[in-house]
Amino acid sequence: MYSLVGAAKVARLSTAAAVLATHGKDESWHPCIPPDAVVYPRSTEQVSRVVAACARSRIPVIPFGTGTSLEGHIAAPSGGVCIDLMQMANIIEVNAEDMDCRVEAGVTRKALNEHLRDTGLFFAVDPGADASLGGMAATRASGTNAVRYGTVRENVLGLTAVLADGSIVKTGRRVRKSSAGYDLTHLLVGSEGTLGVITEVSLRLYGQPEAVSAAVCTFDSMQGAVDSVVAILQCSIPVARMELLDEVTIQAVNAYSNMQLAPAPTLCFEFHGSQASVQEQAEVVGDLVRDFGGASFTWANAPEERSKLWAARHSAYWASIAMRPGCKGFPTDVCVPISRLTESILTAQKMCKDAGILAPMVGHVGDANFHMMMIVDPEDEGEVQRARQIVVDMVHMAQSMGGTCTGEHGVGYGKLEHLEAEHGLAPLHMMHAIKQALDPHNILNPGKLGSPPGSFVASRAE
Amino acid sequence: MYSLVGAAKVARLSTAAAVLATHGKDESWHPCIPPDAVVYPRSTEQVSRVVAACARSRIPVIPFGTGTSLEGHIAAPSGGVCIDLMQMANIIEVNAEDMDCRVEAGVTRKALNEHLRDTGLFFAVDPGADASLGGMAATRASGTNAVRYGTVRENVLGLTAVLADGSIVKTGRRVRKSSAGYDLTHLLVGSEGTLGVITEVSLRLYGQPEAVSAAVCTFDSMQGAVDSVVAILQCSIPVARMELLDEVTIQAVNAYSNMQLAPAPTLCFEFHGSQASVQEQAEVVGDLVRDFGGASFTWANAPEERSKLWAARHSAYWASIAMRPGCKGFPTDVCVPISRLTESILTAQKMCKDAGILAPMVGHVGDANFHMMMIVDPEDEGEVQRARQIVVDMVHMAQSMGGTCTGEHGVGYGKLEHLEAEHGLAPLHMMHAIKQALDPHNILNPGKLGSPPGSFVASRAE
Repeated sequence: MYSLVGAAKVARLSTAAAVLATHGKDESWHPCIPPDAVVYPRSTEQVSRVVAACARSRIPVIPFGTGTSLEGHIAAPSGGVCIDLMQMANIIEVNAEDMDCRVEAGVTRKALNEHLRDTGLFFAVDPGADASLGGMAATRASGTNAVRYGTVRENVLGLTAVLADGSIVKTGRRVRKSSAGYDLTHLLVGSEGTLGVITEVSLRLYGQPEAVSAAVCTFDSMQGAVDSVVAILQCSIPVARMELLDEVTIQAVNAYSNMQLAPAPTLCFEFHGSQASVQEQAEVVGDLVRDFGGASFTWANAPEERSKLWAARHSAYWASIAMRPGCKGFPTDVCVPISRLTESILTAQKMCKDAGILAPMVGHVGDANFHMMMIVDPEDEGEVQRARQIVVDMVHMAQSMGGTCTGEHGVGYGKLEHLEAEHGLAPLHMMHAIKQALDPHNILNPGKLGSPPGSFVASRAE
Repeated sequence: MYSLVGAAKVARLSTAAAVLATHGKDESWHPCIPPDAVVYPRSTEQVSRVVAACARSRIPVIPFGTGTSLEGHIAAPSGGVCIDLMQMANIIEVNAEDMDCRVEAGVTRKALNEHLRDTGLFFAVDPGADASLGGMAATRASGTNAVRYGTVRENVLGLTAVLADGSIVKTGRRVRKSSAGYDLTHLLVGSEGTLGVITEVSLRLYGQPEAVSAAVCTFDSMQGAVDSVVAILQCSIPVARMELLDEVTIQAVNAYSNMQLAPAPTLCFEFHGSQASVQEQAEVVGDLVRDFGGASFTWANAPEERSKLWAARHSAYWASIAMRPGCKGFPTDVCVPISRLTESILTAQKMCKDAGILAPMVGHVGDANFHMMMIVDPEDEGEVQRARQIVVDMVHMAQSMGGTCTGEHGVGYGKLEHLEAEHGLAPLHMMHAIKQALDPHNILNPGKLGSPPGSFVASRAE
């Protein structure tokens, strides 16, 4: 394999055990399944040569960014070469007038926004982790801003990817819309490295709002909080962020981030717009939440106060893990029609309580997407089994409501077994046909999306 | 063929010459290329049986909605069976709390909004024609609201389609976002009937705004109008509509819709929001346009006045045709990075002027997408040739600027020859591989998208 990748003239290759271990493991409970080697290309052409070399020898190829995915996306169940894209971290261009930019796959969302700071523009998608933009595109990532600015799907204008034979495709144009052919960009977005290795992305940017304010509101019931959200959406109030935290998460965040929030179901809002519009939005929302039992609608207008609030929100997963030292995060997310959100959250909370599992809950409730961040003792076989069962039960619940087994974490191999119940066989056959057409020898991230229907349960590494 | 489709148990089939003629022709200059028969299924299952029967005998299948496409999408160069979906016009469900709905493919956008009127919700995508929602999904349609609410791409949550073997796929879930597998929905959106026959669509709805106001502003130069648009976008003012009409279009609209607009480059705005927000948006925009030479910023706040304005805008194509009785519309659209919009519009106007062709211009300028509606005497061979050449030259211009050969009209067979210059060979091979995987016998709308690269020029019906 050395010679193979050597022939591809890539600067660095490693087979050190420690390197392989960090590249076979994400931030979840899924076990480490390491690749055989890791390469660090510095250009799309180098990626192309690596993939072409691997294709000739039918060696699996697994793209890797910051390793912050949560469903075993980067596990290497068939071994192979991990392509670590973090050496490709150039911001290629920022077109301020067109409000777009093009970056290499290894640029992280925070690095991009740091770079954009003086342009008056920002990139809106913000998952908890400081993920790479290539990885975010590959996993169709999302975050707290999606209710206003959309997910990665709405913010990727085009991309460059290396296909299974090493050929390089550039999809999309630097335009807001196009009807010129199949939407290859959005076929690759969310394909989790199984159809191509994304090496560059063109992104839509937004103008930094003239004014920003935030507010925190506690509720005496989950129902009241969610009903507020539905009312806010139906009134078309253009909230930028609308996040729900349950009282367990509040306790975790208070301890981890030195906050003093009241331990109750809590909505955190952010409003973007003109000074007047932000004030009006906040007033209307303030009035509205009172009708649903919202109390203590508290402002956080100072930038440092807001930053602290959202930093605390983004740290919720790590704050939750810190609640039980020595334990592991067992996070799972589902997304439902918003009319079923209260019921689904209350049911999931009861599942965790009945199983005796600590599980802080956070939700991007404007999108009806929520996370149970189960905190599990990995040494306790029974607890691990109960947590696994809760993932399955939550998925079944969401699917039975017309929802999806994952709103933003993706499939990896962790949720592969749930796709048939969600989509039915015909769409899975369609996905598999596309996979076979584009990757006939199944070298791109094998054992994940695009696998033959029926093979999913078996492919799950236990 | 009678017996074949008869076996499919579809209520009606026609081979009458007049019926075939209306089904082989859209609203453009492209010649009529009729199918051999037209069927009128009433359900997805009937569509499935028709397609399965055609698949067995390798007979082409061409889906048809309102026939209002503009690039020969529904032409039948290899003959075959046209599937007219307009008998499938049921609104299946409206979920007010979830702000979504599901409709059969033959429901038109106006029929849906009529149905929604009392719910407080509306469907936002509005091409000029009262197109069918299945057709809009198939062609990735757009309209005047896209700058605020997105195109069909952003508003289709999922769909039902019949694939080339007659199998039925349902894609997407009734959720705002999902990371559960390849984005089959968006692969089918814009595939123009070449990957599947769309029979149902789930759509995102928006709350009717509390307040709406419109304004019309004339400019002494095109540059000033476009610079205003860039400034408005960069200030993140959430305009709902922002349409540019040149002085020729204004003259056409004045005559056709009995308006009295000043004949000059004109921006028409619509603002949605709360009373206060709408007022503020209009004031900010009013101030801003003055800096760029905008004069006579005129309000149209009364609903009937606004309706008249937008009806006139939506009629611009027919108003243009009415300028030269006996002549035909020869419309074409391109989309560019907004920083190149002024230059591209001025160049296109000069092309038409130099060729002696009357060509009103309208633009969805918030998206940097504009249309030259050339009005051509079909009996004048020279004029027709010059118009054809302008289409080609405009495409080359847009592509050289990083733009696309079509922002919203689509490819049909009219723009197939331009895809290679736009995408390069690798993406076209990728599209063709997908087409072959999903439609190995090439029965779905053959001679259009997904054709083998290199075959495009030859496939163009002259």
